[in-house]
Amino acid sequence: MVWTSGWKLAVAAARAGALGLIGAGSMKPELLREHIRKAHATEVAAQIGVNIPLLRGDVDALIQTSLEEGIRIFFTSAGNPQAQTGRLKERGAFVAHVIASVKHALKAAQAGCDAVVAEGFEAGGHNGIDEITTLCLVPQVVDAVNIPVIAAGGIADGRQILACLALGAQAVQIGTRFAATVESSSHEAYKQAVVDADDAATVLVLKKVAPVRLKKNRFALSAFEAQQAGATKEEERLLLGHKREMQGIFEGNVEEGELEMGQSSGLIKEIRSVEETMGTLVAEYNRALIRIETMSAK
Amino acid sequence: MVWTSGWKLAVAAARAGALGLIGAGSMKPELLREHIRKAHATEVAAQIGVNIPLLRGDVDALIQTSLEEGIRIFFTSAGNPQAQTGRLKERGAFVAHVIASVKHALKAAQAGCDAVVAEGFEAGGHNGIDEITTLCLVPQVVDAVNIPVIAAGGIADGRQILACLALGAQAVQIGTRFAATVESSSHEAYKQAVVDADDAATVLVLKKVAPVRLKKNRFALSAFEAQQAGATKEEERLLLGHKREMQGIFEGNVEEGELEMGQSSGLIKEIRSVEETMGTLVAEYNRALIRIETMSAK
Repeated sequence: MVWTSGWKLAVAAARAGALGLIGAGSMKPELLREHIRKAHATEVAAQIGVNIPLLRGDVDALIQTSLEEGIRIFFTSAGNPQAQTGRLKERGAFVAHVIASVKHALKAAQAGCDAVVAEGFEAGGHNGIDEITTLCLVPQVVDAVNIPVIAAGGIADGRQILACLALGAQAVQIGTRFAATVESSSHEAYKQAVVDADDAATVLVLKKVAPVRLKKNRFALSAFEAQQAGATKEEERLLLGHKREMQGIFEGNVEEGELEMGQSSGLIKEIRSVEETMGTLVAEYNRALIRIETMSAK
Repeated sequence: MVWTSGWKLAVAAARAGALGLIGAGSMKPELLREHIRKAHATEVAAQIGVNIPLLRGDVDALIQTSLEEGIRIFFTSAGNPQAQTGRLKERGAFVAHVIASVKHALKAAQAGCDAVVAEGFEAGGHNGIDEITTLCLVPQVVDAVNIPVIAAGGIADGRQILACLALGAQAVQIGTRFAATVESSSHEAYKQAVVDADDAATVLVLKKVAPVRLKKNRFALSAFEAQQAGATKEEERLLLGHKREMQGIFEGNVEEGELEMGQSSGLIKEIRSVEETMGTLVAEYNRALIRIETMSAK
């Protein structure tokens, strides 16, 4: 949720009844502080958390800033939870760590995390190396750990929320659907690129550097061709260059930027407000529930 | 389901209340005839169909043999349904075609198919090129076509069956779980390889020839390394050689053979009879249904 999930989106999600996360992945500590302060100045301050990628060089400063500003809900990702979870728990925080395999779920539980986010291969943006899908990952993680499992990856409608709860998840984390709402800080051209995507619009590339799911555009297709031709890690890194996420998502360079989005983008047909989106998700969930109850009735 | 789904497995599935499919993919027409006759000599003859890969050179003979033997339930895969569906419908058959994208679902519906099997990236064996997961594929196909959708790919327990119905599927097709039952004609060593698999045990390889999901063994890992190094289609073909599916699944060569299995193999813990397996699936489904009803109650 880099470049999409600032305080406006987080607050809108919280107002609509969800837990709103500020995505620190694209923020320096002082900018993060500003976003937290704005979110905390609203009536939904208690429903605001932050997502922090643990591989960031300034991870300590991001965490310190968040703690100083009163954040007690942390979603950590992209790194080893061992180093930071203890420190966060000491401050009374709730910590959920994003994982993409049973092995990493067990490590997160062992590190003292309160929950894991089990994120499948269909997720937009950075992705695990084992390519396990949400449908297969969630029940295996549920069976492996004794902490709550939050399903993620490919979820953009209410049918899929119900499906993930059927798999044993306690909750779901939704990315792309909210990245394409009115309140998201992403560029309008990025939001439109989500709406225009079909089921086969994304591809997982840069697998040797760090696998990332992108919409197929000029850049993503060139990365895919390089991958097919056996490009090395160093060649992938050169091809990637710098700031492509910002270019794609924040500046709206839809051909040369990275357009991170999940396979669920094919299900997203309109740019709408968070409130409308949440209403649709709930209505879809309820319709799906009635359908399976009817199908299951003897 | 090559080398696993002969008449014994199909009949056992039918006796347990499912539709039992004889997998013609590993059979010559005369062997297929023999399997159909044995299945049709049982009390569940009406619940037996065949799966026919349309890319087979002898596809006409396989279909002709099936029709002669009274088969009226066809699951077709790996090819264009346009060529055969009309001929099958003229004979009063039910035709379901396996697809892995919305585009191919629409083609199948246009070709007159009665249903589509929407099979995701997590499926064992041959796989689509768009890498769309079951969670994302099923609802998009449901929204795109007006014929029933059967979910497939990664389904090995009752929670996942319920999840797929939540996504809008009318039914599910289950492969690997039944490939590892007592009645499957696969080698004991293959069945044990399924049981021993964890969540990250499989990999999609040979993407330039025809993508196939295999358990990681000496062969699959060498195919993966070749893929990473940019092997050409011809190099992949040479690496594959001949009869590796038979070697792996039927002869039990667990290092050099192809061990086709889905990501769901991590959920399969024992080799059991079809009847026991079906009982477990139903119990898991019912438990998951009660759980989501409880969670959804206001």
